[in-house]
Amino acid sequence: MREITGDALEDIALGAAVLGTGGGGNPYLGKLMARGAIERRGPVRLLDPDELADDDLVVPSAMMGAPTVMVEKIPRGDEVLGAFRALEAHLGRRARATMSCEAGGLNSTTPFTVAAELGIPLVDADMMGRAFPELQMCTPTLHGVAATPMAIADEKGNSAIITTVDNRWTETFARTLTVDMGCSAMIALYAMTGRQVKDACVPRTISTIEGIGRAIRDARARHVDPVAAVREVTGGYVVWRGKVADVERRTATGFARGEAAIAGTGAYEGRTLRVAFQNEFLLARDGEEALVSTPDLITILDAETGEPITTEELRYGFRVAVLGIPCDPRWRTEAGLGLVGPAYFGYETPYVPVEWRFGPGGDRS
Amino acid sequence: MREITGDALEDIALGAAVLGTGGGGNPYLGKLMARGAIERRGPVRLLDPDELADDDLVVPSAMMGAPTVMVEKIPRGDEVLGAFRALEAHLGRRARATMSCEAGGLNSTTPFTVAAELGIPLVDADMMGRAFPELQMCTPTLHGVAATPMAIADEKGNSAIITTVDNRWTETFARTLTVDMGCSAMIALYAMTGRQVKDACVPRTISTIEGIGRAIRDARARHVDPVAAVREVTGGYVVWRGKVADVERRTATGFARGEAAIAGTGAYEGRTLRVAFQNEFLLARDGEEALVSTPDLITILDAETGEPITTEELRYGFRVAVLGIPCDPRWRTEAGLGLVGPAYFGYETPYVPVEWRFGPGGDRS
Repeated sequence: MREITGDALEDIALGAAVLGTGGGGNPYLGKLMARGAIERRGPVRLLDPDELADDDLVVPSAMMGAPTVMVEKIPRGDEVLGAFRALEAHLGRRARATMSCEAGGLNSTTPFTVAAELGIPLVDADMMGRAFPELQMCTPTLHGVAATPMAIADEKGNSAIITTVDNRWTETFARTLTVDMGCSAMIALYAMTGRQVKDACVPRTISTIEGIGRAIRDARARHVDPVAAVREVTGGYVVWRGKVADVERRTATGFARGEAAIAGTGAYEGRTLRVAFQNEFLLARDGEEALVSTPDLITILDAETGEPITTEELRYGFRVAVLGIPCDPRWRTEAGLGLVGPAYFGYETPYVPVEWRFGPGGDRS
Repeated sequence: MREITGDALEDIALGAAVLGTGGGGNPYLGKLMARGAIERRGPVRLLDPDELADDDLVVPSAMMGAPTVMVEKIPRGDEVLGAFRALEAHLGRRARATMSCEAGGLNSTTPFTVAAELGIPLVDADMMGRAFPELQMCTPTLHGVAATPMAIADEKGNSAIITTVDNRWTETFARTLTVDMGCSAMIALYAMTGRQVKDACVPRTISTIEGIGRAIRDARARHVDPVAAVREVTGGYVVWRGKVADVERRTATGFARGEAAIAGTGAYEGRTLRVAFQNEFLLARDGEEALVSTPDLITILDAETGEPITTEELRYGFRVAVLGIPCDPRWRTEAGLGLVGPAYFGYETPYVPVEWRFGPGGDRS
């Protein structure tokens, strides 16, 4: 167990934006909320999964909805507790700790607010090792853990407890309620025992993203290339360099969907990379060829500062580097690809692990 | 307290279709379900509101969704208990009785299934004195009773408990969940004390609709005009006679909406009545003149048999009589009209009580 202060949050939020692959909500917003809570309530204790007792109750918490809307509708702070408390009341039991659903963006830092406000620890783990756009897309689903009972709450005081026959139905109900609630809502779900957290989640991802954020900060301070620093610390690959030529986006049924075109520069001159997103970047194509696809991570960094760029921040003219980062191995199983592979999102591209193309001996290495 | 057997249900379902004003779901379906439950479990005890203790818990139950869909997706029977039991579990208390939300169609008989299956009585009352298309449109809302906590369940085993800041939000959330659940769902809501039932509900409407059904049956047996019998027993007025010339309908956002055109016959020859509906018939217009509008009841009867015709059964060529029936006086207050008056449904017509036009000395009497 160690303590996370407001300053450590800076590295965590920065690293979370890298694994957020453009989604998971605005990390700046999540950091602001969490900093405020930590200033009021004191540091958050970070608990290694191995420190959990097998029968401890862990209740993950998150914000749901379209990031483009969240930016317009900033949470008050204490309202993030509504869903968490509603689920505890429904379960008739207090949680030992909370946890992040995603290691990406807003939702890596939202649970810090819950932890600080309630004075409970945060488990150093998440349920994806990255960010994904739908609730059922997490490693606990692969391990047979039920998402429900799930609580959802808005800032007006409305809430619901959902119980579904599978995690896909949880996503369906929660998504439409989120739209009703103004396209953003707080959720608490996948209540797990300590044993389940140890078996079914991705361990130590808070430490991982803190390390990524620190690497970027160090590179900037030492005036070395932050993109190279991210590549090294994540085990990823630079798959493109260029200038954002066009971004087409729309918010539909609670998602921010769209596609960005990145005109190549340097070695990529004369070609255009198209990156499709649905909250997160999901597929990067050079003409007809898929360079990287979900479940591997596609991250767009500012070429100079190494700052990760979210789908809603992406603008014409940005000079960027596009990274492909290998995902948690569980996503590469048949069940994992069924849940989050390219076909689920409607792309015909077969999945090819990013290191097969860009690793040593890969066809683009 | 008296017992309702399967045979008495025939009169109740028939009368319920009259006060259902074309909506509230298919009464035949509700009757079949209730008959099956009564055959399996025995008669249902009907409890006068005055027989309730002030602190008794009463949990009304209903089916929600588009009637056109319910006809296609017939409930199994015991699934209607899902929402009821989920709400009892949430409240941590067993209900003394159930009650009808509406005195119309399916939802006047659905609670008989719940009562028979659980062996609890049904209160002789409802929350509208008719049928209305949205959850907040009931007399308990006028008395400040909260619709939530509310339970909603589908036939697959999915359920949710909703808690909202007002009854309008309950409708919003329940409606989108109903659409997700396949456009029909079971609900339990407006949990009330015996005192609240006595103060905030419309008393003895089950007996009222039983009386209406009996009057139609008697008239048929005695070969006298069943339309006249309905007019007498309801205190209503025949406002039109004619032949259905056209019906335009669509199912959108969980509602059956549309408009029927009824070409006048006899005294009405040469003119066309247009009846707009949204699950229920809401406005009957002769040219630009509104003859009857919500909250008064508009009921369409088969001219010969007196059989009430629902919005989904309405077909070209039907010979019909259109009745206007005065509503519960609470609907005529400013708060009542705000909740269910013509303006709420988007009609510019000011509300004029039906007896002002058709009663003694009325401009159409």
